[in-house]
Amino acid sequence: MMKEVYEIFQRVKQKKPLVHHITNWVTIYDCANITRAFGALPVMAHARQEVEEMVGQASALVLNIGTLTPEMVDSMILAAKAANEKKIPVILDAVGAGATKYRSGTPFKILDEAKLNIVKGNYSEIGVIAGLEAKVMGVESVSFEGDPVKTAQTLSEELDITVVMTGKQDITSGTEKTFLIDNGDSMMGSIVGTGCMSASVIGCFAAVELGHSLASAAALSCFGIAGEIAAKKARGPGSFKEEFFDAVANLSQKDIEEMGKIKQL
Amino acid sequence: MMKEVYEIFQRVKQKKPLVHHITNWVTIYDCANITRAFGALPVMAHARQEVEEMVGQASALVLNIGTLTPEMVDSMILAAKAANEKKIPVILDAVGAGATKYRSGTPFKILDEAKLNIVKGNYSEIGVIAGLEAKVMGVESVSFEGDPVKTAQTLSEELDITVVMTGKQDITSGTEKTFLIDNGDSMMGSIVGTGCMSASVIGCFAAVELGHSLASAAALSCFGIAGEIAAKKARGPGSFKEEFFDAVANLSQKDIEEMGKIKQL
Amino acid sequence: MMKEVYEIFQRVKQKKPLVHHITNWVTIYDCANITRAFGALPVMAHARQEVEEMVGQASALVLNIGTLTPEMVDSMILAAKAANEKKIPVILDAVGAGATKYRSGTPFKILDEAKLNIVKGNYSEIGVIAGLEAKVMGVESVSFEGDPVKTAQTLSEELDITVVMTGKQDITSGTEKTFLIDNGDSMMGSIVGTGCMSASVIGCFAAVELGHSLASAAALSCFGIAGEIAAKKARGPGSFKEEFFDAVANLSQKDIEEMGKIKQL
Repeated sequence: MMKEVYEIFQRVKQKKPLVHHITNWVTIYDCANITRAFGALPVMAHARQEVEEMVGQASALVLNIGTLTPEMVDSMILAAKAANEKKIPVILDAVGAGATKYRSGTPFKILDEAKLNIVKGNYSEIGVIAGLEAKVMGVESVSFEGDPVKTAQTLSEELDITVVMTGKQDITSGTEKTFLIDNGDSMMGSIVGTGCMSASVIGCFAAVELGHSLASAAALSCFGIAGEIAAKKARGPGSFKEEFFDAVANLSQKDIEEMGKIKQL
Repeated sequence: MMKEVYEIFQRVKQKKPLVHHITNWVTIYDCANITRAFGALPVMAHARQEVEEMVGQASALVLNIGTLTPEMVDSMILAAKAANEKKIPVILDAVGAGATKYRSGTPFKILDEAKLNIVKGNYSEIGVIAGLEAKVMGVESVSFEGDPVKTAQTLSEELDITVVMTGKQDITSGTEKTFLIDNGDSMMGSIVGTGCMSASVIGCFAAVELGHSLASAAALSCFGIAGEIAAKKARGPGSFKEEFFDAVANLSQKDIEEMGKIKQL
Repeated sequence: MMKEVYEIFQRVKQKKPLVHHITNWVTIYDCANITRAFGALPVMAHARQEVEEMVGQASALVLNIGTLTPEMVDSMILAAKAANEKKIPVILDAVGAGATKYRSGTPFKILDEAKLNIVKGNYSEIGVIAGLEAKVMGVESVSFEGDPVKTAQTLSEELDITVVMTGKQDITSGTEKTFLIDNGDSMMGSIVGTGCMSASVIGCFAAVELGHSLASAAALSCFGIAGEIAAKKARGPGSFKEEFFDAVANLSQKDIEEMGKIKQL
């Protein structure tokens, strides 16, 4: 399994796919920077005047609703339609779905007009999209009552989409395959932006691997391994972030094959 | 005194208040990240479609006029009104007041429609709001002729607000109590964003402490202590920033009680 | 030559010019932070309500089209006109020109209404502006067929502007003088934002030196020297960024005079 993961990880570095982001203003730099650290090319562009043309150059489109406005949603829909036509994967990071009606409704507004290939969120955000009881405070998962794996699988079938749920254990569920990923470290939650960055990495991997559930699992595993390596050296969130970017850029075949923990259900 | 400060500092970690920011695009990440480093939960949301609902989850609202637009001012007013109804503290960081008429006028535009609980700025920014002779270059305090303590106290009474003036010596002045804070290090000025971050920390502390002058003094003291610890280890602004976040996350009771310098007038 | 460079570098620290940016949302923090690290004062302001007045305080104006919208272009034109009247230098960083028609057209839209003093881009971005065959993927130079020096010189004459082309070798070409700069390290490309930051540094130097080709060459040389120093200590992109800001703040006369590599054609 981890051999295949390493192979996808390497393909990102070789193909250097352009990953177009329409994302939030908080973590926009880190999303671009992690894309580059994994060897892909980031571009951030959100004006309706150019998003369709920019998608024309891209190999994946990452949408993130972390700081939404109506203009951004319009641009996301335009870009997603262009990505659908070009048949490149569209990833939606449902940041804060459940916190306000506006955020909870936006994924469906986009889905009404375009196809999404991967939807990602923490347990509660995905729970809210699945119509379950779940509580989100700001952008934080507070409570989620359902069975995570079943939720991912059911939502995946309903929407014909790959569902990625992040939490203590990550879950990716595509039309056929479900993976459980057990990498990562609690220090990753000590800085802002790890969730957003992981969606960017999923974008990088899905740009070069058609099996989106596998691509997402591979992305989260590599991302989590880097987090584990960094956590061992960090003395707090400041040094953790520095070590994390170093670890991503220096991830080796040995790291991935020895530390990776993915289980296919 | 510092025992009480430590107690408030700990309360932030225990209650994990959600601190809603409508802030500028320059330091938005750092504002979120410092909120998390102090143990609270940040959320950044500025669309008029969701700010009122987001305030409904929050325990404090931080407004920062660092990169203003009319849409942002509208959202700030909507959010501040919602915060007033919910009786959670509203903190305004008057970044760059005095540099342009638009920035100088915005605090009053918000005050016309909503109650602010804490207004924060450097000596010149507060001087401008108080109607005194003061010069601001961009977002920098250039000159301020008045008596800082008297200015803070007078403005506090006039507007029925807690006034926070930051500079070599910080001053917080509420309706009853005025504090002088002598923590911090000149290296804090070597990076962009320390001022903005300190307003976020005031938001975290005011979310759990009703005495806003005390909450602000406690926030600035802890923030400054972390700066002093980081400055000792830093070799320049890059390493300072890393050490600063590590220091914030690792602040101990001993650090706060031994290094804190707050004087009540 | 490098003595003169050091003298300009020192002038920035002494005069502390205010450098007004209207820039993109990805690297806005780093642009502000590098401006401060070189000893100048950054201010970021983009609302049409205040850009002209803010220019009134500034000694240079840096425009960056990395995340364009029509509102931003309007503000850039207003600000550039005000800068022309005040006779302070206007620097345009043509980020992503060539990737979409919207980005390729914007420099000309601004040029139709205001004077630009320095235009900066990678080989392909400048190639696109010069009307040559060049390919840009997102914000990356992919291919450029022309002769870089001739391109810079011709475009400089045509537009009566200083042209800055960045790449393995940097070129600055003003109405009279052309410089080749051979500083920098490949690690600078491992993080997002080096290109944008270099435009900010050119803004700082052009604010205090009327010879814009020399100012740009001096800026790129000092910037590149800091990159070389940082690269020696870095273990990856995370530590590189930290070391880079430390190196900028600690740049010495010896570093500049011994490591600087500028050749005048």
